[in-house]
Amino acid sequence: MVQHQIVRAFAPATASNIGCGFDILGFALEQPGDEVEAWERAEEGIEIVSISGDAGRLPLDPQRNTAGVAVQALLDATGCRRGVGLRLRKGLPLSSGLGSSAASGVAALRAVDHLFGLGAPPELLLQCALEAERVACGSAHADNAAPCIYGGFVLIRPGDRPEVISLPVPEGLACAMVRPHVEVQTRAAREILGDQVPLSAAVRQWSNVGGLMVALFRSDFELLSRCLHDAIAEPKRAALVPGFAAAKAAALGAGALGSSLSGSGPSIFALCTSRRQAEAVAAAMAEALERQAQVSSDRFVTTVGAPGARILAESPSDG
Amino acid sequence: MVQHQIVRAFAPATASNIGCGFDILGFALEQPGDEVEAWERAEEGIEIVSISGDAGRLPLDPQRNTAGVAVQALLDATGCRRGVGLRLRKGLPLSSGLGSSAASGVAALRAVDHLFGLGAPPELLLQCALEAERVACGSAHADNAAPCIYGGFVLIRPGDRPEVISLPVPEGLACAMVRPHVEVQTRAAREILGDQVPLSAAVRQWSNVGGLMVALFRSDFELLSRCLHDAIAEPKRAALVPGFAAAKAAALGAGALGSSLSGSGPSIFALCTSRRQAEAVAAAMAEALERQAQVSSDRFVTTVGAPGARILAESPSDG
Repeated sequence: MVQHQIVRAFAPATASNIGCGFDILGFALEQPGDEVEAWERAEEGIEIVSISGDAGRLPLDPQRNTAGVAVQALLDATGCRRGVGLRLRKGLPLSSGLGSSAASGVAALRAVDHLFGLGAPPELLLQCALEAERVACGSAHADNAAPCIYGGFVLIRPGDRPEVISLPVPEGLACAMVRPHVEVQTRAAREILGDQVPLSAAVRQWSNVGGLMVALFRSDFELLSRCLHDAIAEPKRAALVPGFAAAKAAALGAGALGSSLSGSGPSIFALCTSRRQAEAVAAAMAEALERQAQVSSDRFVTTVGAPGARILAESPSDG
Repeated sequence: MVQHQIVRAFAPATASNIGCGFDILGFALEQPGDEVEAWERAEEGIEIVSISGDAGRLPLDPQRNTAGVAVQALLDATGCRRGVGLRLRKGLPLSSGLGSSAASGVAALRAVDHLFGLGAPPELLLQCALEAERVACGSAHADNAAPCIYGGFVLIRPGDRPEVISLPVPEGLACAMVRPHVEVQTRAAREILGDQVPLSAAVRQWSNVGGLMVALFRSDFELLSRCLHDAIAEPKRAALVPGFAAAKAAALGAGALGSSLSGSGPSIFALCTSRRQAEAVAAAMAEALERQAQVSSDRFVTTVGAPGARILAESPSDG
């Protein structure tokens, strides 16, 4: 009888774009998240033995699954030739704008890195996660994978090796998140943007990115509120989410600092000055979605910039 | 014999855009600057009695001169019906990318505000200066007028009433500025940009604006250096300034953190970690311009974010 070590890792949902920060801002949520169990198997190669919580929609083929692609990239990068078994528990809904594909990849990376004692630095984990994002989304943007790995609220300078910059989070800042029960395909949401934007809108966007940074450093909620506007993506993507305008208006009416799509949607976040306010805001958003668009939703409240992916348990078990 | 009070005000040159901050970033220089003398005259209306330092190029007609337009806007806004005489001493070269038109307007505003004890807040002075910028440049951007009024290093959120946000300046940060003896018309430099930009370039730009803000707050010179890139305007405008590429390369070779056009050029700034470094960088830039493009230049070194416009003297004199 062989003792197998099983490592279980968690990777959180992430909000990205955050109003003005298209492709460059993201933060980790407390929950929900994905869990991955990893263990060594006798043969080389990666086997995904099961996926739960995805209603059977994700491929077990490791070359087509973000967890498989990410782990293969990590094994290649570290010259590790050991075989890996993986079990995925999706806590995150697919195509929800909460970084589902990144979370599976990152949880698997953390688990395998720990299992084999690879000691991969976060920069390498990010590179591997982005390989997987390319498979899932057709393009590699780090605004989900980076906060998922690093935790907190991060600014990304894109590039072949994206730079991840941790941002300060004002005390009390909380996030109300509502996930409407509709799906938005990341690819489609990206194509709708086109590849050119008006210079005047771009100038508004980067002035708001600058102002948002100042607001975070100075804990200036009023400035933060003025800067939480998306001049680029939200105007085009809002139509993909029935009831978005009503939910956003409800959030602002309930006192939120600002509200926009998380990632490419359909999830809608609102930043708030306290968890208590965020509870009321989330309820108001969900109610507006139901009333205006007959769309049901999940909702939750979280701190802004929760910890990133981490090991939950490692247990020797009978093989 | 009537005693006339004469108020003399100074308004500094300003650097704008600052690499990634097209239309939203600017800082005041120590020198050069414009001076305006203002006094009350018996008849209503504004008279510009003389302009020196402009080689006769600026109009004395107050409706076509930024000083006249700015002061008229201030008198209108405050309901002041007194007559004003103005004398302008241009210390700033025209069409140099150093905020020449803004400086004349702002110096006149400061002088007249003080002369009549109007107590106009900076927000109002900015509105009046922007009226004048519209006359001078065909469009009103606050990235020269705002640092000229407020001093320091500022972030602007554009709009009908632009918001001006003061930024921290890391200790030691200095600016080398070289003004090649060529002219770039602000209007032409703006038209060359077109009104659409690639989304990918815009994303790089706002990631760098975000990173630059973080660098200023954390006094992180390395990050600041990485973020001092202009993906939008410099690539198109560089060709308008003979020798620009050589001057920029010389600046970086001499250790500058970054270098780009000031405003729409032709002036070229480089940010440095000390005044001493900035002296060497300015000399290297000037030498490169001369060698590569046979363009002579003025150069000077200044702190980043010097004080804004101010009263130099008020003197009763015989009328």
